[in-house]
This record gives sequence, C-alpha cells and structure tokens, in this order.
Amino acid sequence: MTEQPGAVLFKDVTIITLDSTRRVIFKGYIITRGSRILDVSPGNPESVQPHTKVISLPGRIIIPGLINTHAHLAQSLLRGLAEDLPLHSWLCDRIWPLEAAYTGQGVSADGYVAARATIAEMLLSGTTCFLEAMLTHGSGFANVASAVSEMGIRACLGKLVKFVETNPALNIADARDKDLSHMSIESLLSAHTTFHGSSNDRVHVWAACGTPRGAPISSFAEVGRICRDHDIGITMHCAEAPRDLPIFREVYAGRSPMQFCRDAELTGRKTVLAHMCHLDLQADLPILLETNTTVAHNPTSNMKLASGVAQVPAMLKAGVNVALGTDGAPCNNSYDMLREMHLASIVHKGTTLSAGSIGAHEALEMATIRGAKALGLEKEIGSIEVGKKADLVVLDVSGAWAAPWDQDSRNGMDPVSLVVGSCTGKNVTHVMVDGSLLVEDSRLMCADEADIAMAARAAVKGIQQRSGVKTVPKAGWTYVT
Amino acid sequence: MTEQPGAVLFKDVTIITLDSTRRVIFKGYIITRGSRILDVSPGNPESVQPHTKVISLPGRIIIPGLINTHAHLAQSLLRGLAEDLPLHSWLCDRIWPLEAAYTGQGVSADGYVAARATIAEMLLSGTTCFLEAMLTHGSGFANVASAVSEMGIRACLGKLVKFVETNPALNIADARDKDLSHMSIESLLSAHTTFHGSSNDRVHVWAACGTPRGAPISSFAEVGRICRDHDIGITMHCAEAPRDLPIFREVYAGRSPMQFCRDAELTGRKTVLAHMCHLDLQADLPILLETNTTVAHNPTSNMKLASGVAQVPAMLKAGVNVALGTDGAPCNNSYDMLREMHLASIVHKGTTLSAGSIGAHEALEMATIRGAKALGLEKEIGSIEVGKKADLVVLDVSGAWAAPWDQDSRNGMDPVSLVVGSCTGKNVTHVMVDGSLLVEDSRLMCADEADIAMAARAAVKGIQQRSGVKTVPKAGWTYVT
Repeated sequence: MTEQPGAVLFKDVTIITLDSTRRVIFKGYIITRGSRILDVSPGNPESVQPHTKVISLPGRIIIPGLINTHAHLAQSLLRGLAEDLPLHSWLCDRIWPLEAAYTGQGVSADGYVAARATIAEMLLSGTTCFLEAMLTHGSGFANVASAVSEMGIRACLGKLVKFVETNPALNIADARDKDLSHMSIESLLSAHTTFHGSSNDRVHVWAACGTPRGAPISSFAEVGRICRDHDIGITMHCAEAPRDLPIFREVYAGRSPMQFCRDAELTGRKTVLAHMCHLDLQADLPILLETNTTVAHNPTSNMKLASGVAQVPAMLKAGVNVALGTDGAPCNNSYDMLREMHLASIVHKGTTLSAGSIGAHEALEMATIRGAKALGLEKEIGSIEVGKKADLVVLDVSGAWAAPWDQDSRNGMDPVSLVVGSCTGKNVTHVMVDGSLLVEDSRLMCADEADIAMAARAAVKGIQQRSGVKTVPKAGWTYVT
Repeated sequence: MTEQPGAVLFKDVTIITLDSTRRVIFKGYIITRGSRILDVSPGNPESVQPHTKVISLPGRIIIPGLINTHAHLAQSLLRGLAEDLPLHSWLCDRIWPLEAAYTGQGVSADGYVAARATIAEMLLSGTTCFLEAMLTHGSGFANVASAVSEMGIRACLGKLVKFVETNPALNIADARDKDLSHMSIESLLSAHTTFHGSSNDRVHVWAACGTPRGAPISSFAEVGRICRDHDIGITMHCAEAPRDLPIFREVYAGRSPMQFCRDAELTGRKTVLAHMCHLDLQADLPILLETNTTVAHNPTSNMKLASGVAQVPAMLKAGVNVALGTDGAPCNNSYDMLREMHLASIVHKGTTLSAGSIGAHEALEMATIRGAKALGLEKEIGSIEVGKKADLVVLDVSGAWAAPWDQDSRNGMDPVSLVVGSCTGKNVTHVMVDGSLLVEDSRLMCADEADIAMAARAAVKGIQQRSGVKTVPKAGWTYVT
C-alpha cells in the first residue's frame, strides 16, 4: 500500500454525497487520483486523462465509506460464543476469559488473525474506517496495526488503558488484568509514537479508557490530561447497562455519567463515548453539547445484551453529535454497518412511537459524516467532496429486492431510503480506501478471504482450550455430530 | 411446474431440522423425490438411486423453507414511496390511493408484475411460503394466483373481504372502496372454488378481513361463520397502532381486540392476526390460547410505522402460537425473512431488558414450524422431516463474516446463532419448494430476475400517474437530476 494509487473514474452512477448541502446526484461521475477525490459532478466528464481506470456503474449507487465508531477487532473469533447472556455475565464468564487467552506471534498471532477476519468482513460490507474500542494486550497492538496497514483500511486504534478494579462490590473479575502492566499510559504513549500517522496517515492511535466502575477519578483525569496534551483521541464504554447509572452515582460522589466524564477531563472534540443508554439526560445533554463530545450508538448490541435503547432522538435534537457502531461479533453478530444503519433508522420510531423520528437520512449521516466528526476527521472523510480522501462504497441495487428503483425515471424513490432500508453489506461491489480499490466485483483484492476464514477457524480452537470457556448447547435442542 | 420433480441429494451439509426434538445435524444429507423428503440423516447415504441430482454443500447450512405469515404481494412496487409516516397517514395518503390505481390485464397487469417481483425477492432470500394479508380487487386475485402458480412458491392468498366504513369519526378515506362490490363474501367463495388446492396444493385461498374500525360486528361474524363452514383460513390486521385499542373499546361496546375477535367468530386454528401490538393482555392472552389463534409478529414494520413492539415474550410464555412476517415493502423495506428473524431475536431482549428473552432459536421457530402451524400446514411444511414437503433453503456461510464457523470441529458456535444472527437473505444459494429447485447458485431458475425488475420499474410510473400521489423530497437535502 505504499505506491500512489492511479486515477479512477466511476461513471453513470447515483452519488449520495453527504456534503454540506446533502447533494444526491442521480446520474454522475467521480474521479479520484492518488488518495484524493478530484471531481464529483452530474453528467459525464468532458475528457478522461490517460491511464485512468474507468468503472461504469449504471443503476448503482455510491456512498461515502462507512465509519464504524465502536468495534472490537479481536472479537470476530468469538462470534456466537456468548449468546443470550446479559452484559456482566457475558463479559466476566465468556468474553474476558476468552480475550485473555489470545496469544501467538507474527502471522499466527490470534490478534492478527482476528483483526484480518474483522477487516475483511468490514471492507466487504462497505466499512472503510473504524474506531477500535478496546485493544487489549493479549490481542497485541502491533498485530492489529499490521493488519490495518497491510489490508488498506483506515482506523483509529484505541489502546486499552486500564486501572486495577477497586470496587469489590461489583463482583466483577476481569481475566485480562493479568496483563495490567502492559495497559498503562506509558505503553499508550509508546504506541502513539510508533504508529500514529503511519501508512499515509491511515493509522491513528487513540486511548481506550477502561470502563469507570470503581477506579479513582484521578486516574481517569490523568489519562484525560495526557491525551489532551498529545492530541490523542479518547474512547470509552459509558452508561451501557441499566446498573451503570447507579454505579456512577454511588462510586463517584453522586455524579451522573457526563458529570464524571467532564470532571475526569475525558470530554472533547476527539472523545467518543460508546452506548450511553442510561444517562441523566437533564444533566448530561448540556455537557455533551458544550464539550463537543460524540456518542457512539450501537443499537444491535444494546438490544442483544439487554442494555436498552439510547435516547438518540433527544441527543440529536439537543445538537449532540451521534455516530454509529456495530460493537463486536459476539454481541451483534456482524460488523455490517448497513444492517446497523437500518436498525438505527427504525428503532427510535418504534420506541418513541413517532414515525417522524430518526429515519434513513439521519442513520446515513450517523454512519458517515457524523462518524468522521467523531474521529476529528470531518475535513478528510465522511462525505464525497473534491479534495477529501477517496473512501467510497459502491452498492448493486439491480435485483428484484430493489424494485422499483430507477436511476433514470426518478419515480419518487429516494436512493437514501433504498440504501438504508433495503441494502445489506452483501450488496457492496466496490470499496475504495485512500484511493485504492480494496474490493472489486464483491471480491476482496487486498487479501484472500478463504485463507482468512481458515486461519480464524484454527485460532479459535486454541483460544477456547487455553481459556477453559465452554459454550452451553441450547436447552431442548438436539445436536448430532 | 406440472412435471413431477426428480430425486435430489443434498450432502455434506449442516441440517437444522426444526423437527420435534429440534435436531441439528452437523454433517448429514437429505434426499428428496417428487415433492417430498425421503431421508434426513447424519453421515452419507449408503447408495444413491440412478438419476439423482447430487448437490454437495460442504460447510453450508440447510434450514426449512421460511414462512412469511404477513406479506402484501402488491406492495413491492411501492417500496420507498411512503417513508417516515405514521400508520394512518401512510395508509390514507399514500398506500391506499396507490393500490387503488393498480390496473391492467395479463402479463402487464400491475398486480401480476408486483407479485412476480415480490415472489422473486422472497425466493432469492429463502422464503418458500407466504400468507398474503390483503389481496385487493385492484391487484387482482387471478394475477397473483398465476404468479404463484408459475413461479413455484407456496402461498395462502388472503382475499380481502371488506365492508363500508361506518365510523366517520375515524376520518379515514380508503380509495380502494370504489371496488367494494368485488370484495364481497361471494367473490371470496368464488375464488376459493376456483383456486384453492391448485398447483399440487401449493395455492390455498384464505379470507383477509378488513380491519375492524366501525363496520358492525355482525358483518365480521358472517365472514367468520362462512369461513369456518368452508374450512377457509382467516387473516386480519388487528391492534396494530396505539389508537386501535381505544377504537375497539369505543366502537365495539367495550370489547378488547380478542373479545371482539371471539364474538365475531374470527378465532381458530387457521386464524392469523397480524401485528397485535396493543392488546389488553389479561383479557386477550387466554382467548388467543383457548382458540388456538396465531399472532403474526412484524417487528420491522411495527417499528418503522411507529406502531410499537408487540409483547411476544408474554404471548409465547402463555403458550400462544406466534409466527413471523415482513409486512409489505413500503413498511419494511424488504421481504427478507432472515433480516426479520434477526430483529425478532434481539428486539425483545432490548425492550424487556432481559437477555434471556426471545433469541435466535425462538426466532427461527417463529419463521418455520410456528409459521406452518399458523397456516394449518404443520404436518406438511415447517421442518425437515421424512414425509414432509421438500421446502428447503441452503445458506452459504463460507465468508470471513461467518468466521469462525466450522462444520467439522464444532468449536461451540451454534449454527442457529449463525443463521439468525449473521445471515441475511443474500446468503441463500439454493431454494427448493415442493421438491423443485427454484434457486440454484443464488440465481432464480423459475423466471428472469432482470425482466421482473424492469417490468416493476415500468409499472410504477403508471400507478403514480393515475393515483396522483407524489412523494416529498427530504427537507434539507438537494436532489440533482
């Protein structure tokens, strides 16, 4: 991925730009050169430069690359291994012991194998940039950074900074604490020095703060101050499960979640707080707004883990930036941002009983331009505009399932409704990141998908054996080998 | 579709049977001959009869054909034409005037074109049987029956029986009432005589009762009695929107929804009531249970139209049969039952804050064996068992998105979680209905999908012109032609 990509012309295509006027071009073209977008216009280009790769896409739709602002790269290997459990048992009994058993070096390191599987799935389903929410020592920062660098996706990698749990009342045991010394502020700064800005600025290094459940607020504030000093982005799980709100109140002197974050100096333009299902809206919305802090909304994960539904309509109404995330494979069970957008576009209508609530357009904004803003990258990515990075996704909408979509006649169907309401990641045919085509004709060009799936199957066996974690067959069902 | 299908062997495949012991066979085979299943076993067959088509599917998963118990076949043409509207305006201002404008004869009839588009989408996404919830005169019963017969899917076609709306307080105008004389009990009985049991019993004729909003209960009771006399199944929209519960109380002498249905003689083993979001659970659950009446759950539609979330966990706990449906394209925006199963498997965990609530296994039951029971067909379809109709769906789960699924090592991932949690209809590779392969290698074998999409594009233009219905561009967005 070191060579400068050549020029590409996408033509005869419907373009949903997400620019400041939210332009939707029913039939137009895009020209990219190197890592940037050179032209976005209706109609056809007057001339085409020599050596331009021409991709004609009649009837198809191009959207900005999707931005997943809450994902766990290592967890693709744990898909299906922690079903039907509430958050705390899901964590303590399954996910943490399994994550603590990740090991290995080089191309057979579990963290590397897992990251490649997740990135393959992301790229093939239209995600071009993600925020890793909690890179543990076991998965290995360098493993995941290598996978990102090699495969060509864009990422902000949140390195876990974790303190000793000092709240015995929680009855929470985190098997990953054996590696606590590797999850220090020093190791964050070291990773930042080594990796931040690498691969033509595709790799950014963030801090992923441990979830506040008992560690002193002063420890969090130290992370907050150092990150601000070094302009390091911060992400953190916050107010996810119903019991998290009373934990904030009890442990942190009556503070609400955002009062804690403000006092811990964790808020700001490059802060992404994930989940946020259980806030004190009256106290917390003004702090979110004043501090330009972003909420990462994860509707699938929040439903599956019985966390609840974040009050996103109130957040957007107050002017808070809300982005979208899939969370990890064991709580989704997919990294498909198109599926996540669809759920985001209907769940709030259903739970607020208001059909005018968040719909397709708002969901697409959350998955693109609002995601870019969350990462401090709104001048570089998140929309299809001249001068921005060429992060683009092409969707095939030619099937009966998309009827009566008609690029030419404009029968009143909004392509935004079609993308969010009817597409899934399986409709993605081409993906460009930083000007390079990583997916063409629905095939991964930057790695062998079958090899990746095979390596994942091999890795999970060892992880399960070392962790001792067993899954329980569904009661009343008969499994025949 | 008149020739008897030959024998087919599916081998080396994981089989989720949904039989009475809920057997999941990690590696086995299925033999079909004619329209029936001959053998379902682990391992390999000892011998294969001559002229058997052998389909080897290592790593893939076979599930019973999915049964959509609430779908509107005509509405595929209206996809995306009624966004962000609450139910009553969605109906009165968009859907009904558009449906009333359906016209044409033969292969260019709007109802025929629409039905073919819907059936193509259904088959390609794994649906092998559906209950049409409301066939209006405009779409034409014969048009839809022809499409079903020709394309090879299985269907119960609910012919709309409608009365004059006598409740002026509702302020509801139904443009389809111009055809009221064609939506009589007599025309239902005539359609039943002509079509019921045709195409090797693939086509059944049901009654679709108009939604109770003011017409006298005696009119409904007449339909109920006649349907029971002729063993005709009944489906009806019931207690969908928040205002529907008070309408029942006010118009029908204080009755709850199920008290109305019982007194209107609409309940029974072959009755499917759709939506059921706003019940009086204390009054209604016992009636549902005693009368063996089925609820068709439509979570996507109920969220999108801001209807709310049906209390399915309470229904299942009480012992009520609950099946699954997509509803129509303008309120979903898809007929993909895999997507619907996924939402059903997470929404109740999220809204009841109980991670042990309805999950993947229960959602798959709703989409298969419970759907079969809803239609009175549980001895014929809904599970993979010797002697049952050969309605089967094959899913490709070889991608990175399905890792670490491993048919051989059984690493603890339940294939049911993979199917419901991670698959969409786009993963379907083969579909068999009544022993005939209608989809092979993800291609529709029984019709040309591109022709179907083209006909749909042509048809919707005329419908829009005749109806006068216009869609409104999204405020704040710029559409460039």
